[in-house]
Amino acid sequence: MAWQDVTRKKREQIAALIPPEWRFSSQAIPSRITQPNIVHMVPLFLSPFEEEITNLPVPQLLQALHCGRFTAREVVAAYCHRATLAHQLVQCLSEINFESAAQRAAELDGYWRAHGGPIGPLHGLPISLMDRFNVAGLDSTSGFASWVGNAKTADDEGVLVQHLRALGAVIFCKTNVPMSMMVGETVNNTIGTTWNPQNRTLSAGGACGGEGALIALKGSPLGIGTELAGSSRIPAAFNGIYALKICEARLPRDGLVTVVSVRAVLFPKYGQLTCQMRGLPIAAGSIGLLSSSISGLQTVFRALLDSSPWINDAETLEMPWRQDKYAAIAARTHRSGHADGRLVFGLLSSDGHVQPHPDIERAMHNVRQALQQRGYEFRIFGSNSGISIREAIKASSEPPIMQVKAWYEQGHVDGLSATELWELCHVHFEYRKRYADYWREMSNRTRSGRAVDGVIQPVAATTAVRDGEFHYYGYTAVANVLDYPAAAFPVQVGSSSFDDNMPHGPPFNAVDALVRSCYRPEDAKGMPVGLQVIGQRHHEEHVLAMVQAISSALSEYNPAMA
Amino acid sequence: MAWQDVTRKKREQIAALIPPEWRFSSQAIPSRITQPNIVHMVPLFLSPFEEEITNLPVPQLLQALHCGRFTAREVVAAYCHRATLAHQLVQCLSEINFESAAQRAAELDGYWRAHGGPIGPLHGLPISLMDRFNVAGLDSTSGFASWVGNAKTADDEGVLVQHLRALGAVIFCKTNVPMSMMVGETVNNTIGTTWNPQNRTLSAGGACGGEGALIALKGSPLGIGTELAGSSRIPAAFNGIYALKICEARLPRDGLVTVVSVRAVLFPKYGQLTCQMRGLPIAAGSIGLLSSSISGLQTVFRALLDSSPWINDAETLEMPWRQDKYAAIAARTHRSGHADGRLVFGLLSSDGHVQPHPDIERAMHNVRQALQQRGYEFRIFGSNSGISIREAIKASSEPPIMQVKAWYEQGHVDGLSATELWELCHVHFEYRKRYADYWREMSNRTRSGRAVDGVIQPVAATTAVRDGEFHYYGYTAVANVLDYPAAAFPVQVGSSSFDDNMPHGPPFNAVDALVRSCYRPEDAKGMPVGLQVIGQRHHEEHVLAMVQAISSALSEYNPAMA
Repeated sequence: MAWQDVTRKKREQIAALIPPEWRFSSQAIPSRITQPNIVHMVPLFLSPFEEEITNLPVPQLLQALHCGRFTAREVVAAYCHRATLAHQLVQCLSEINFESAAQRAAELDGYWRAHGGPIGPLHGLPISLMDRFNVAGLDSTSGFASWVGNAKTADDEGVLVQHLRALGAVIFCKTNVPMSMMVGETVNNTIGTTWNPQNRTLSAGGACGGEGALIALKGSPLGIGTELAGSSRIPAAFNGIYALKICEARLPRDGLVTVVSVRAVLFPKYGQLTCQMRGLPIAAGSIGLLSSSISGLQTVFRALLDSSPWINDAETLEMPWRQDKYAAIAARTHRSGHADGRLVFGLLSSDGHVQPHPDIERAMHNVRQALQQRGYEFRIFGSNSGISIREAIKASSEPPIMQVKAWYEQGHVDGLSATELWELCHVHFEYRKRYADYWREMSNRTRSGRAVDGVIQPVAATTAVRDGEFHYYGYTAVANVLDYPAAAFPVQVGSSSFDDNMPHGPPFNAVDALVRSCYRPEDAKGMPVGLQVIGQRHHEEHVLAMVQAISSALSEYNPAMA
Repeated sequence: MAWQDVTRKKREQIAALIPPEWRFSSQAIPSRITQPNIVHMVPLFLSPFEEEITNLPVPQLLQALHCGRFTAREVVAAYCHRATLAHQLVQCLSEINFESAAQRAAELDGYWRAHGGPIGPLHGLPISLMDRFNVAGLDSTSGFASWVGNAKTADDEGVLVQHLRALGAVIFCKTNVPMSMMVGETVNNTIGTTWNPQNRTLSAGGACGGEGALIALKGSPLGIGTELAGSSRIPAAFNGIYALKICEARLPRDGLVTVVSVRAVLFPKYGQLTCQMRGLPIAAGSIGLLSSSISGLQTVFRALLDSSPWINDAETLEMPWRQDKYAAIAARTHRSGHADGRLVFGLLSSDGHVQPHPDIERAMHNVRQALQQRGYEFRIFGSNSGISIREAIKASSEPPIMQVKAWYEQGHVDGLSATELWELCHVHFEYRKRYADYWREMSNRTRSGRAVDGVIQPVAATTAVRDGEFHYYGYTAVANVLDYPAAAFPVQVGSSSFDDNMPHGPPFNAVDALVRSCYRPEDAKGMPVGLQVIGQRHHEEHVLAMVQAISSALSEYNPAMA
């Protein structure tokens, strides 16, 4: 069958799984050009009860499920409805699993009735998965037409999916990814492009663009993706939601399909077997969580750790949720605390390699003002303020994963010798060491003499891009290369006016020139602007507490007092 | 200069660093043939005070130092003396650092007088290092003549050495290793062969044979080595002492020189720089501790973790000493405990690939009897009792590190493609997963339904070997490939008589035939026999508590009651 037939059939199958009463007529779907923003359109088609359910943050939703105020069926049905509305407007789903989800929800309700309580901490929570996680009965296409129609079985499911089920979560859909997954936008020949709900002429980001758009439209309370160079944080920033990039060894990463380049080129003899890249450290991905609230990220991350995933996955560290670490950061956010005890942030507005667009710079400026107003210490890293960090960040413009991509595109994988690959590992290791050394040294440079707790920097140089215009992964890839945790958070919406221009002066380099040329005030205006905070390795607890502190400072920020 | 001149000069330099009053005349050194065992000879040359100091286990020695009963200078001097006696009899040292050690000891004594207490938990503890750790002012030769005379600087020292110093330890010597370090014996052209103190016609094992012999002669209270395929455990077993092989990420591994094959062949452009193999997971080494007591291993391991080495090394996990894990195992060793709560051991007498010599089999038998008498549960894994484990262990007869060695020997490193190297990583990962799955499954097979806490198995198929007769790394390499912690412990001395023979029947394979052909009852008689217990990944605390439980059971074991 020609690929056009394969993808058309797949689209028809997905469409057929949408209950008729939830379908828009083709006339009801507004044009992307005349009505680019459809965020406010979705709730109009929901019942008040469905809207109530889907507006609740994860902990409140779980509380309502645990105490029996909502049944799992009601919650799952509400999210299925909202997700289908979202999908019809922005093309965010890749698989619909509603029948299985409804059945599981019914079982959970039966359990609740029999035992008078929930089956686990995530009882009845609908969860969406990036189209890379194997789920029984569903494809894992990675955006390749050739992988359509190859449904996975229960044996293909990884430990993460198994634990989610055991915790009571309900997997109700999978979300769209770009072909090969190694792109900062989401487009493929099966589902098409996932559009940004705030402006459907722009991208939802990638590789987890399906998750980003779906969650922005509250079509899912919690999405799980992966991260190779920003795949969860970029869509979060483009869509105004939160994402947590988790270090490689803290959650299981089996049961994932990986790019065809590695699969077919490097492992021809494994045929249809899924194979892991994680044997090789430089190409290992990590898990990303996406949600419209910090509490959503924290609740699910913690529940997964509390389920001891290391028991079932030898590659996962036995490192439980460390409440003391979370509390140590949280305690330093109180106004009453001694000034020296306050959090210390490094602020990196530009990596000196690619200049962020004006709205990203404004967001950095506002975060700085908000932190100052709140009494936090911070240190600004300009492009002259430390050769070490600039070099470190600059190095990330060629993260190893991009080189992996290059091998694929250039088709000469076999030409790379073990020597070169080994050297790549070595460079990767040296880079991590250098950055860690630098972080340590920074403690000598803060007023309080304390080490910097986290570094705040852009997620991308731009707000949501037009088709084909995502050009620079340096701001996100640094955390992947380092295997550091990071959280993306929304700051504001773009206020670019036509008077705004990229700074004059010669571009730093060709990539910078390209990114500058993509700046259009009319695209940025009104679009979400996200930043990220990066923590030290394996300190996800710190990062969650820091993003809470930053968001709290932002919510209280009064520009008039700045 | 010809290598013969280089090595002769180095030997003369080392000899010149031995104070004249500690030197044996050449007539005073007995022939290896007429007096192979010199264990009882060494104390004859010590003062009663020196003997008292060097006979104390590490915690008691530290207590005496902390309370001021001994000065650091006294302790360091006593160990320097004993180490030189050992070296003159078995050739176990590669570097003598007495002057620097005495100076540091004097500083420590000054600190103690000024502050009325120790500088840190290891105040005044002499520590010996395998000749792979960079120490300022000393060579790191790895057994290569070409690396002689290239003294390292303070900048070359790794985080482990820095932390040892900060904790109060005194590095007083470095110990001999085989050329390239990838051998289970210790021989090179500079120092020569390190002989086994119990029989100087046999090997001290390798690669940390210098440590094994030195500690067996109580010339050092605590030695630090590395582990690529048993380098710490093999010398421990051959010399009747204890060794703890630590998982890769729990202690820093920078500041180590690595084999010339990797250094010069893979990284020619780095020239004289030390380069790390740990960028590549399959060739990464791990740290090994050696001591004549379990308490020695535990004290130093814990002190290192308590010093938070992860602060200064980005590759080290922030995983502090977990007393709860240690206590959980220790609590299940009490006679009073309910039978179901008792420890559960798997016993693997033979991996079905290479048959251990009769004394190793007897040791396994005795451990089994001792555990039974103590009321522990155990499960015997014969060569028919589980395809999974047999295959898993068999696979370890070709651990990746051996393949690395093969590349070097065959000189075609560049011929290995990235594809093959990547595939090797994948196989390595799959192997680890399979073993972890197997371990989990074993819980269904024990009487109590509890998972097996640890697997007891040989360290080597043989007791101490003759020159060039160490042929099989499978029993140790399994823990390296898996990155599991393991501890070697002494069980008994060999009781082989001339009636003993290797079992009849065809050998399993050519390696088995070779190992069987090396069995000589007269070599095994009276020699130490060691075994090991392997725990789950990152559970060094479990392993230390288990080896304590096993040793305690062995010490109480009454064969008459079996």
